[in-house]
Amino acid sequence: MLNITLPDGSQRQLADGATGYDVAASISEGLARNALAVTVNGEVRDLHRALPDNATVSILTWNDPSGKSTYWHSSAHLMAEALEALYPGVKLAIGPAIENGFYYDVDLGEGRSISSEDFPEIEKKMLELAKNKSRYERKEVSKADAIAYFTEKQDPYKLELLENLEDGNITFYTQGNFTDLCRGPHIPDTGTIKAAKLMNVGGVFWRGDANRQQLTRVYGITFPKAKDLTEYLERLEEAKRRDHRKLGKELKLFAFSEKVGAGLPLWLPKGTALRERLEQFLRKAQVKAGYLPVVTPHIGAKELYVTSGHYEKYGADSFQPIKTPNPGEEFFLKPMNCPHHCEIYKTEPRSYRDLPVRFAEFGTVYRYEQSGELHGLTRVRGFTQDDAHLFCRPDQVKDEFMKVIDIVLYVLKALDFNDFTAQISLRDPENKAKYIGTDENWALAESAIIEAAAEKGLTTTTELGEAAFYGPKLDFMVRDAIGRRWQLGTIQVDYNLPERFDLEYTAADNSKQRPVMIHRAPFGSLERFVAVLIEHCGGNFPLWLTPEQFIVLPISDKYSDYAYQVKAQLEQHDLRGTVDGRDERIGRKIRDAEMGKIPYLLVVGEKEAQDNIISVRKHGEGDLGSMPLADFVKSVQSQMVEAM
Amino acid sequence: MLNITLPDGSQRQLADGATGYDVAASISEGLARNALAVTVNGEVRDLHRALPDNATVSILTWNDPSGKSTYWHSSAHLMAEALEALYPGVKLAIGPAIENGFYYDVDLGEGRSISSEDFPEIEKKMLELAKNKSRYERKEVSKADAIAYFTEKQDPYKLELLENLEDGNITFYTQGNFTDLCRGPHIPDTGTIKAAKLMNVGGVFWRGDANRQQLTRVYGITFPKAKDLTEYLERLEEAKRRDHRKLGKELKLFAFSEKVGAGLPLWLPKGTALRERLEQFLRKAQVKAGYLPVVTPHIGAKELYVTSGHYEKYGADSFQPIKTPNPGEEFFLKPMNCPHHCEIYKTEPRSYRDLPVRFAEFGTVYRYEQSGELHGLTRVRGFTQDDAHLFCRPDQVKDEFMKVIDIVLYVLKALDFNDFTAQISLRDPENKAKYIGTDENWALAESAIIEAAAEKGLTTTTELGEAAFYGPKLDFMVRDAIGRRWQLGTIQVDYNLPERFDLEYTAADNSKQRPVMIHRAPFGSLERFVAVLIEHCGGNFPLWLTPEQFIVLPISDKYSDYAYQVKAQLEQHDLRGTVDGRDERIGRKIRDAEMGKIPYLLVVGEKEAQDNIISVRKHGEGDLGSMPLADFVKSVQSQMVEAM
Repeated sequence: MLNITLPDGSQRQLADGATGYDVAASISEGLARNALAVTVNGEVRDLHRALPDNATVSILTWNDPSGKSTYWHSSAHLMAEALEALYPGVKLAIGPAIENGFYYDVDLGEGRSISSEDFPEIEKKMLELAKNKSRYERKEVSKADAIAYFTEKQDPYKLELLENLEDGNITFYTQGNFTDLCRGPHIPDTGTIKAAKLMNVGGVFWRGDANRQQLTRVYGITFPKAKDLTEYLERLEEAKRRDHRKLGKELKLFAFSEKVGAGLPLWLPKGTALRERLEQFLRKAQVKAGYLPVVTPHIGAKELYVTSGHYEKYGADSFQPIKTPNPGEEFFLKPMNCPHHCEIYKTEPRSYRDLPVRFAEFGTVYRYEQSGELHGLTRVRGFTQDDAHLFCRPDQVKDEFMKVIDIVLYVLKALDFNDFTAQISLRDPENKAKYIGTDENWALAESAIIEAAAEKGLTTTTELGEAAFYGPKLDFMVRDAIGRRWQLGTIQVDYNLPERFDLEYTAADNSKQRPVMIHRAPFGSLERFVAVLIEHCGGNFPLWLTPEQFIVLPISDKYSDYAYQVKAQLEQHDLRGTVDGRDERIGRKIRDAEMGKIPYLLVVGEKEAQDNIISVRKHGEGDLGSMPLADFVKSVQSQMVEAM
Repeated sequence: MLNITLPDGSQRQLADGATGYDVAASISEGLARNALAVTVNGEVRDLHRALPDNATVSILTWNDPSGKSTYWHSSAHLMAEALEALYPGVKLAIGPAIENGFYYDVDLGEGRSISSEDFPEIEKKMLELAKNKSRYERKEVSKADAIAYFTEKQDPYKLELLENLEDGNITFYTQGNFTDLCRGPHIPDTGTIKAAKLMNVGGVFWRGDANRQQLTRVYGITFPKAKDLTEYLERLEEAKRRDHRKLGKELKLFAFSEKVGAGLPLWLPKGTALRERLEQFLRKAQVKAGYLPVVTPHIGAKELYVTSGHYEKYGADSFQPIKTPNPGEEFFLKPMNCPHHCEIYKTEPRSYRDLPVRFAEFGTVYRYEQSGELHGLTRVRGFTQDDAHLFCRPDQVKDEFMKVIDIVLYVLKALDFNDFTAQISLRDPENKAKYIGTDENWALAESAIIEAAAEKGLTTTTELGEAAFYGPKLDFMVRDAIGRRWQLGTIQVDYNLPERFDLEYTAADNSKQRPVMIHRAPFGSLERFVAVLIEHCGGNFPLWLTPEQFIVLPISDKYSDYAYQVKAQLEQHDLRGTVDGRDERIGRKIRDAEMGKIPYLLVVGEKEAQDNIISVRKHGEGDLGSMPLADFVKSVQSQMVEAM
């Protein structure tokens, strides 16, 4: 008999030779039907492989990231089978699963190519083959046999891959007419692949080496239900419409310039208004919570980073040091604000009564990213962290965490992020040696985080071994309006920098003690946060935040004076907006204002000027009729109060 | 007869051989008495030298910077005479005038030295010699005679200086028993030197070369009246008391850290509050004036600076480029914000109707300064400009200048800088070739500046040839509370960058035109401005600006609750302050609050808590008696309204 432990800790006994499928079936018939693979002591394996004794086993379905990934890897094999059928003699390189779907790099042979016009035929062939419900059969082979197989098949890529594999460690997977060199694991059979779509095709070099063979990379995605594919494609379309790079341009929020440099955003006036309002919003909350704003330079001398430990991490892939006329003197663009804040902490002696001290800075930092990795505002080379460093006594960690959670929740709520979980990252209890800090402090901080999160009613997941070497942390994982997950907001305990900077405070007994440092950034970075926000709200920013809340549209030049009066009166009520004073027809003005996603369009003509009223159109909703200004102001203000 | 033109353009005729003195005497007897030297066609000369024909002549007195400088140079000779008398055999190197006074580098000879204890004797000797009213006699000498003279005198320094001089171009000046190799000019005689004070003594190397002879540098200053010296020394004392480096530390405004790097200020919480309030104050005024805030990165790619022309000016004395893993890719710390703003201008097509556009940024820039040149916040390596760039049509320059002047005046008034003049820097009409831009645009811009300054009622001075090569400018020269002059606030026209960045707008006739760019910074840099402000107000900031307006001082722990109530109530009226909740005696609390230069100290004890009042002490004025909170709020608010 086998002893099996399930993820909830319960135990089952199964017959020798039992598989993951048997475990699933012992739980429920539905789970067995939906099972795609299994994890055995944390390692993903084929569902139908015999289990070892005393293993912890969990069943993977489509709803598990590893389940999806296995499914897509198997789909890559299915696509390869289809390609072999349609392009006889095609040579295959590698075909992994990716975040959304999979790809296969193939060598079609001289004179052959694949374009998007060929996609439907390949998709059709894939589904045709899938219907056979061919099983993915695993087979251990000797290196000699493997080489013989691919030599006969004349596939130089697999042969080259084999060179680096050890005999006794080589497996083939076969489904239908297709056999691949593959470590697996795979789903049980092709029958669950009900929808397939090729997404893209492009050229890549074998092993990324520009001197070697050019291959064709074919991207695809598959689903267990046709409806899933339809929804996925709709989500993709929606994501395209909401792409912050596109909206950022259309709404004139930010721009990039080749001369200034890739990954270095220029914030245009409207983007700056948005960004500054976000800053101001957080700044107010922080001042209320006892934070002390500070300002530090964007560079630091080598000494600073030798002390902080960053110096040894600067490598050939970083921004290189800034030399000066003074030999040996070197500065670095700052990659983070903490070392500077540690130096501020040290400007005066601190007593236990002074703690916590909380230094806050919207600090712009610079980190080199390869140009291929840059992406709009989400991957940049310069970004502004809404950074703060809290220096506190060990017994204050929990209280500080609670207060920081309050601020993060305040931020998320104000920006309509209502679907999120918090991930608690703790030390690996099996490997305490790799962490800095005393056992006692770790225990204190970890339980502080767990308790703080519980008391604040957060939905949490806990990851053992995911803590940084310098301390445990809490990250907020937020789901946006179209279902994508983003990591926003982080709170981290740090025992390392206080040690390296030799920070101290005088305790009540007059002894010198080390403070604990907490790093936290509710937005993370303003750039990335604004990008996520744009995509979350599709450019329709919350009323309190949007750069222009209204635009007054005079139907002709004659009502321009009245339009400016309206603007001035609204400004007196702290509303902000502009007048479209152009010599354009009202239809065009309305269209442009709608394009600009301005929440309220206030049309004024003869009747409005005469009766001292405005005709209100709401973006995305249409005509709200005419009303006195006071009514409009009241309605807008009440919406804003509600939102906050 | 000689024809002489005076600075006001009037002409005089004098006998051949007439001197500057004769010109002065022909104007007034008082001027002749006070005349120290003369400028002849812009060159400073001895008052008693014969004038050439058709020269423009102006008389220099103690009130002219060049008059002072000549006076102090002559005083250096007087000190040398005194040193020769007191230290026979002393060898003399060089002895120039400096900003305040003069120095002489001397070689006292083996085993002799000068300390501040010797100063009174030297000063006494100087005044004794001055009483002789010895004339400074100029004499042209041949190189051979000059060499013979100093060979006999055994002065190796003068002999070395002579090596580089051309025969026919060498002059000696003699007063009393002292003869020096000197180009002059000098004052007529030693009789006007009535007060002398040696300020300092230190070691320097001959010609700044550490491998050569060490010399003794003796600093001194002299005045035509004993009272002037007393006042000067008092001003020095006052300046020391107000030194922003000292007050910045005492008031915890900013700090420097060796690890972060010299010249890179860390703004502490109180300094940050001050700085942010200054920013906010200007930001508001700018938004009202139609400025558009933008945000740009602190680095730019090489291409940007090749375009702007800064690239060729980066040299070995600058921060060196930041290399990256990408060969050939280079970034630079930005030395100014204009190139970035030009790129923002280019992000969309501009029409004549869109202009002016005004991009504003509190942009932090970095410029390398030798560590010896760094000085508190006035000379730093990183500073934040209150920068804005106005892109306008040529016909809009005057209007924009008027509006910028309004903002500068608003800033100066709000910060109690009431004594200032404006310097208009124009093109050298004799040398138009060295300037970029058309004659027409220069004429337009120069008259626009002159008219704008006149219409705004500014007291101006006009300097021909002081314009930058790219355009004319207007600088505000401000006198602080202890009489020192600072250049604060600059407005510059720029024809260069629009050309280099190929900026354009579509004119009414659909043609492409070049906009004019105006750079302006009312503060100049926040760092330098705050330094000047600290010294101007001696750390007693205007009420609206000061980081803490009040501090509540409970006389014991028992009244702590009431103290916090008072604070909360005042905060509701937008006043800001803290409670001194320490377990200290009230005397100590008052002393510390006075040290911190907090404007209002609110003492609360039993009586105050009972009657719901506060006892108010005003910094520097003392007890104002007790009063209800409402009265205090009213009084403080009315003071702030008045100030703005």
